[in-house]
Amino acid sequence: MALKKKPVTGMKDMMPKEMEVRDYVIALIKDTYRDFGFTSIETPCVEHIENLCSKQGGDNEKLIFKILKRGEKLKIDTAKEESDLVDGGLRYDLTVPLSRYYSNHSNELPSPFKALQMGNVWRADRPQRGRFRQFMQCDIDILGESSNLAEIELIQATSTLLGKLDFKGFTIRINDRQILKAMAAYSGFAEEDYDAVFITLDKMDKIGLDGVEKEMEESGYPKESIEKYLGLFREVTNDITGIHYLKETLGDFLAAETAEGLEQIMTSVDAVKEADFTVQFDPTLVRGMSYYTGTIFEISMDEFGGSVGGGGRYDKMIGKFTGQDTPAVGFSIGFERIVMLLLERGYEIPSRKEKRAYLIEKKMPQEGVLKVLAQAKEDRKNGLQVLIVNMKKNKKFQKEQLAEQGYTDIVECFRD
Amino acid sequence: MALKKKPVTGMKDMMPKEMEVRDYVIALIKDTYRDFGFTSIETPCVEHIENLCSKQGGDNEKLIFKILKRGEKLKIDTAKEESDLVDGGLRYDLTVPLSRYYSNHSNELPSPFKALQMGNVWRADRPQRGRFRQFMQCDIDILGESSNLAEIELIQATSTLLGKLDFKGFTIRINDRQILKAMAAYSGFAEEDYDAVFITLDKMDKIGLDGVEKEMEESGYPKESIEKYLGLFREVTNDITGIHYLKETLGDFLAAETAEGLEQIMTSVDAVKEADFTVQFDPTLVRGMSYYTGTIFEISMDEFGGSVGGGGRYDKMIGKFTGQDTPAVGFSIGFERIVMLLLERGYEIPSRKEKRAYLIEKKMPQEGVLKVLAQAKEDRKNGLQVLIVNMKKNKKFQKEQLAEQGYTDIVECFRD
Repeated sequence: MALKKKPVTGMKDMMPKEMEVRDYVIALIKDTYRDFGFTSIETPCVEHIENLCSKQGGDNEKLIFKILKRGEKLKIDTAKEESDLVDGGLRYDLTVPLSRYYSNHSNELPSPFKALQMGNVWRADRPQRGRFRQFMQCDIDILGESSNLAEIELIQATSTLLGKLDFKGFTIRINDRQILKAMAAYSGFAEEDYDAVFITLDKMDKIGLDGVEKEMEESGYPKESIEKYLGLFREVTNDITGIHYLKETLGDFLAAETAEGLEQIMTSVDAVKEADFTVQFDPTLVRGMSYYTGTIFEISMDEFGGSVGGGGRYDKMIGKFTGQDTPAVGFSIGFERIVMLLLERGYEIPSRKEKRAYLIEKKMPQEGVLKVLAQAKEDRKNGLQVLIVNMKKNKKFQKEQLAEQGYTDIVECFRD
Repeated sequence: MALKKKPVTGMKDMMPKEMEVRDYVIALIKDTYRDFGFTSIETPCVEHIENLCSKQGGDNEKLIFKILKRGEKLKIDTAKEESDLVDGGLRYDLTVPLSRYYSNHSNELPSPFKALQMGNVWRADRPQRGRFRQFMQCDIDILGESSNLAEIELIQATSTLLGKLDFKGFTIRINDRQILKAMAAYSGFAEEDYDAVFITLDKMDKIGLDGVEKEMEESGYPKESIEKYLGLFREVTNDITGIHYLKETLGDFLAAETAEGLEQIMTSVDAVKEADFTVQFDPTLVRGMSYYTGTIFEISMDEFGGSVGGGGRYDKMIGKFTGQDTPAVGFSIGFERIVMLLLERGYEIPSRKEKRAYLIEKKMPQEGVLKVLAQAKEDRKNGLQVLIVNMKKNKKFQKEQLAEQGYTDIVECFRD
């Protein structure tokens, strides 16, 4: 078989320039979240196929890279369908593996448990520009904490991180699944229609109130419900006043503590924020995953025109593994998008070391080479990044290339 | 299907204590090698099945986790063998992917190219204590440099790294495939027997000179050859004198530059070394992979009783992708073994931040919580790692647990 030079379809070789930014961002993420008391964990990239197909992953379950059984377990002759051939798959997110991990180890872990995970996930999506089939996810989760402190800390830590990367003027939009439900119930939609109603609502930022109205009418919902529902969205504002309005209007449909909780999160995050951003109440925020049970949130950046992270509360997932529900909230930041934005704006990594290169003349005797090696060792102790290379025939070109790689100080070493 | 709590067979959930050490070692590796002019790169974890089965991976090729084709490409009905079902696999090492990467991008990369790769690899080995089916590899490679400078820098950088991790008294053993061959040729073995002879020689440290002699006799090699061969090993010493001895004895069988090159590497590494270790010439060092063409080396640690890293020159592999040979030397350090050794000796991460925990009394009003959040923010700015948690009923136990996690300073926050 001929060898292939390109990476597999939809996956990407990381070039040195991008890796430099990635390495820097990874280190900053680890440092920042550690300062907030999060501890790193890691799960295997391969998961049981049963866990990956457990309906916790929504549409992602269609996109699993599946792993062939090995040895005697693989029976190609009698295999009828995929499930006969595979026993594992590459994880498509970090939330399902975290739930398994916590179920497996909860008695060895502190409670609440504040986890930081950074790792690759895989989705066999149709390849398209800027979206890859292997990408890094970065999740923080707080397990075992039912109070709002969890949400406040997730948002505070993540916004602090973005601030350290010089992101400014972004918006953190926040909502609660219970508010979504209360608004639908108040308007008189049937409970079995909620999910479909939310899917339409989710398009608000693209098609506007009129577009949502039209789509709902086409779906055949009662005119009265649609009117009542959209009436709420016409009145509600994107701030705490909006929450107050819904609390009053929805009455018994909305638990007081849901509204108060959301208000508390918003005022707290705003009071201690370290970055330049806005917290907004957004009753149109839906977030796709069906496992969310309470607060949901998302980061929007105008320069990106989309979400660069999001999360929410999923108090029922761990119970699926253990039989006992555990409060859980998570925030996933869009690592790949953040790196892309930084690369696009030509981000300069702060406090980088000075880079020096020694060019050694051809046929330099060993004592000469040793001198250079000793000098480089000294330089590194003094905080320099030092490269030693043999001098090339086309020295001018070589020096240009080195300058392009950031070697500001190039020292030529000759025999004498 | 029932959900499974355990990780898949042979793979491991990483607990916070281990992750702390791993994160620290990863950061130190990146920093140290960067100081020597290495740049990070990354390749996808999934590789073309053709590349993985290209005979570059030796026995590892038997251990590939293979990935099922997707969509219409998967034809279960007509599939006869594994190769009909799969189009990719998880990489089993970082050397084959590096060769593909370099072939694909060489005109965008500096020459020589000094690459640092850290990433997981997968091998479906029989599960056994301390060996896992997913493990982190850490490789540095210099591509496009035919001179010994490459070997010298790989060894200097890696030994410096080990020194920074407080490893002392280790040995770097070094040999050259050309010396192995010259010794076999001088002794009169047939060329087609070399590989088998080396497999026996490789057991020297376990079965001794007598054991090797016995096994060679059983293999039916000419008595004269065996005697001549073992005679060399009786005379040769583990230092530069040993190299001189072979240079004189083997005559035309050994190219002078091979012996001189090895001597130069040894004296240079010794002259600039920053850690407490010994460089030894070891003519019994074989190293399994058939792709090595020149120098080979390995790190031995008495406390581990085995190799914690190794590498060598493989000048012919990249040519398999490009049709044009490129000089290449690599050093792979045994990341998992190093982490294991550090954990076993209860390694303390140097210059860790002080950890403070605030315990918040139940039903603390919002202003109280905000005060704690603001104080924590201040603390973090002052270089502390700060955790905020709600106070539990069993406060004594909670405080003990926090102390165990390294929170040396625990502050209780009450309502008044």
